[in-house]
Amino acid sequence: MEWDAWGLGEFRKQLSPQVLGLLRAALGVDAAQTAPPEESTVTLRPSTLTDAQRADLHTRLGAENVHTDEGTRLRHAGGKSTPDLLRRKDTGAQDAPDAVVLPGSHTEILGLLRWCADQRIAVVPFGGGTSVVGGLDPVRGEFAAVLALDLRRLDSLLDLDPVSGIAVLQAGLTGPQAEELLGARGFSLGHFPQSFQFATIGGFAATRSSGQASAGYGRFDDMVERVVVATPAGTLDLGRGPASAAGPDLRELVVGSEGTFGVITEVAVRVHRVPETTAYRAWSFPDFDTGATALRSVVQAGAAPTVLRLSDEAETGVNLALAGDIGGESPTSGCLAITTFEGTSDHVRARSAEAGALLAAAGGTDLGDGPARSWEHGRFDAPYQRDALLAAGATVETLETATHWSNLTTLRSAVTTALTESLAAQGTPPLVMCHISHTYPTGASLYFTVVCGQTADPLAQWAAAKRAAGDAIVAAGGTITHHHAVGRDHRPWMADEVGDLGTTVLRAVKEALDPVGILNPGKLIP
Amino acid sequence: MEWDAWGLGEFRKQLSPQVLGLLRAALGVDAAQTAPPEESTVTLRPSTLTDAQRADLHTRLGAENVHTDEGTRLRHAGGKSTPDLLRRKDTGAQDAPDAVVLPGSHTEILGLLRWCADQRIAVVPFGGGTSVVGGLDPVRGEFAAVLALDLRRLDSLLDLDPVSGIAVLQAGLTGPQAEELLGARGFSLGHFPQSFQFATIGGFAATRSSGQASAGYGRFDDMVERVVVATPAGTLDLGRGPASAAGPDLRELVVGSEGTFGVITEVAVRVHRVPETTAYRAWSFPDFDTGATALRSVVQAGAAPTVLRLSDEAETGVNLALAGDIGGESPTSGCLAITTFEGTSDHVRARSAEAGALLAAAGGTDLGDGPARSWEHGRFDAPYQRDALLAAGATVETLETATHWSNLTTLRSAVTTALTESLAAQGTPPLVMCHISHTYPTGASLYFTVVCGQTADPLAQWAAAKRAAGDAIVAAGGTITHHHAVGRDHRPWMADEVGDLGTTVLRAVKEALDPVGILNPGKLIP
Repeated sequence: MEWDAWGLGEFRKQLSPQVLGLLRAALGVDAAQTAPPEESTVTLRPSTLTDAQRADLHTRLGAENVHTDEGTRLRHAGGKSTPDLLRRKDTGAQDAPDAVVLPGSHTEILGLLRWCADQRIAVVPFGGGTSVVGGLDPVRGEFAAVLALDLRRLDSLLDLDPVSGIAVLQAGLTGPQAEELLGARGFSLGHFPQSFQFATIGGFAATRSSGQASAGYGRFDDMVERVVVATPAGTLDLGRGPASAAGPDLRELVVGSEGTFGVITEVAVRVHRVPETTAYRAWSFPDFDTGATALRSVVQAGAAPTVLRLSDEAETGVNLALAGDIGGESPTSGCLAITTFEGTSDHVRARSAEAGALLAAAGGTDLGDGPARSWEHGRFDAPYQRDALLAAGATVETLETATHWSNLTTLRSAVTTALTESLAAQGTPPLVMCHISHTYPTGASLYFTVVCGQTADPLAQWAAAKRAAGDAIVAAGGTITHHHAVGRDHRPWMADEVGDLGTTVLRAVKEALDPVGILNPGKLIP
Repeated sequence: MEWDAWGLGEFRKQLSPQVLGLLRAALGVDAAQTAPPEESTVTLRPSTLTDAQRADLHTRLGAENVHTDEGTRLRHAGGKSTPDLLRRKDTGAQDAPDAVVLPGSHTEILGLLRWCADQRIAVVPFGGGTSVVGGLDPVRGEFAAVLALDLRRLDSLLDLDPVSGIAVLQAGLTGPQAEELLGARGFSLGHFPQSFQFATIGGFAATRSSGQASAGYGRFDDMVERVVVATPAGTLDLGRGPASAAGPDLRELVVGSEGTFGVITEVAVRVHRVPETTAYRAWSFPDFDTGATALRSVVQAGAAPTVLRLSDEAETGVNLALAGDIGGESPTSGCLAITTFEGTSDHVRARSAEAGALLAAAGGTDLGDGPARSWEHGRFDAPYQRDALLAAGATVETLETATHWSNLTTLRSAVTTALTESLAAQGTPPLVMCHISHTYPTGASLYFTVVCGQTADPLAQWAAAKRAAGDAIVAAGGTITHHHAVGRDHRPWMADEVGDLGTTVLRAVKEALDPVGILNPGKLIP
């Protein structure tokens, strides 16, 4: 990925003159397209590794797998949140890992972690580099140096059991790499988060990722059958069957541990045969609450769509604008809902009919397949659009939560109000958009996108808004994160999430697996 | 429940002369119906509580909630496994808790646990008393006394959110109590394990229970939205939404903890509206492997039955015999499969048609609804039948495991062989029956029922067979328990299940929550 933006440079977006005009009119963004900074102007804090440590690493991993050049360090200096990208523009000395190491096996990682514990060097496990919660910040904690442990060399499909539908994947495989290896055998994982194109299997597990087809295939944590973890205290190999009553499910302790307990090296996941057919159907609802109630009726009936999502009025309108459709015929004036169904023709026909009847009965207007196909076509574009808006002088960021159905309206309103009030008080009243992208029988996620003008200090501007939103989420009974994970940015709310005694439990597990505390200090655990 | 048998005396079964004849002919069981022992002949080890401790308990809980009489202690002396019932026949001094206490609230339990830690008194949390893995054995460990903490007074439906489909239930509610409270409001939990009639909500959570409708409504661990736990170190209150990426899922550490980390006092669970209709359909398959492949096709297609199970040839035949059908027309000579479907008429029709087409294509013969309705009618009877066979001089016990589909035949064969060889070597060649009662996209459970003649020491006889079966399960890649939990009986295999480092993690969590170690010593954690 680019060092200062999401994704690949070739896919960078340009905003149309109409959108720039809208930005100016609605949010006061002056839309002066400033040239992006040159990489050559960036200065990194020098590496603190000693020559002896560097030589040790060369011996352990091979010199070609130990990088201390500025370009590699810069590309491991953080994730891809808006604050991350703003920090990349800093003209002072930027923080970065002291080295980037690329071990080639579980055994090498085990040895490396022990060596790091001995040397008192912190370790940040690094998958696709797509964190938007500060999970990759090169925090040293109490240690003199920090390594980014890049897992890209662990990129094999180790096994595929076609009868059980289980693939054993190494942690460094990216979403597309895994799908390609599985697709060649007629299988698919079906896990398509926004970060899909770059994020890795290990990262999906470490952060409890949830994909756009979660209604059909479940969250990534649901897909994990077995997980292998290298820790400073040795290897954890957890999961002996499709389900078990043999005590606490320790897989669920590793899944979501964000590199603070160990490095996930291998994951056995549930896969399915590439579906015979996919049906697409979009719907329009007059307002968000009506749409949400309709989605609830579908998921509570078990009508089993593969994708089920709903944008509010603002997001529906803006997405159309960004897609270049301004002036064209708008497919909906209200809230756009997307459904897809995968499986055999008969299976798809039955589910689609059941869901369609429920959505229509709940007030939906059938828009046909077009808008659903358009959504799928552009579904990985949002981060590129975010970058184009950032470059145009807007502050743009997303955040997300989840709650029970009965609390959805309250939570949405609380977060919208908190964001609006915080940013308005800073002189930059925002546009706040919201969608539901993940549904469960008992509740749903809420995903917010915020756009406003930039103040002179956009990092401080967003930090204040984020603090207000996080406090509002917790006060209104939501979870501080539905699928972005905790990292550094959500850590202040972890005690609200699990309580003081839950925090004590997390620390006890950390102490058992990583007694020196080298793994991802400053993340997740308060 | 009866002190020396499963369930209520009024439902005790009598074996028909034909079945007794079969037992004699097939297994050499002489079928002499011995009179059950009288309760008055049982001697218990005297309570070791001091007068001061008893007075303290009276002050804390009220004298009426502290029982040291022999009848109450005897009824809390263990669970309902075959070894438990054999131990109840012991004419020497039997072990039992030193007192049975009935706290009335979470707060009382918190205080009680702190008092027990101070006094160095062990605590066995006690729900419905249905453990079949020694989870309720009154083990003192290093302590001078042990209390059974009976949760029956925590029997309220605290809240029902009809929009989200979430009920907040106190831990001491039994299955029927919970269903009655929910049913009055039009809802159902849909959790019907064999122990349903007596087991409790807290017990379901503490042991990762799985019900007969798990194909439709999931395992109990899937249903848990939130769990509240009293520990010696304070209260855990875990679960803030339908799903979260806020770190490790600590609910999954409490669920399955079998009273070793704390006492579950309250559980918020997913519930659903009482279904409009239920469709029943039974199928016959020529052999077990053909039937298993058929079930796999249904679950992997997402055809979503509510119940999906398959008995092997032996179980199919014996169940018919026990149901009094000997001589009647047998509905199937092969392997009987049961399906049910719940929901609206349209929903049920579509699922039933899809599953039916898959089962027929895989070699199934449609037997209509009769055998499926019969199965449902008698589905809680098996433990009564076990007791009747025990009384007739047979050794009868069950055990269960799970594995991935590709390993199912191997595992079934390994367990069958281990049980057969162990019991044959003891001079009592057994009948080993097997069924699949829980299916997942990636695998299924295997539930074994073993019947053979009794040796002079049936406890030792079964201990040897159980050891052989457990070793075979672990060697063949199964989990040591799919839904019976670990307790004392499966503890020898826990290190195989989670590894040495997993054991270290369990001990670290235990130390954080129960530093004195009073909670259910000798259970679960090796």
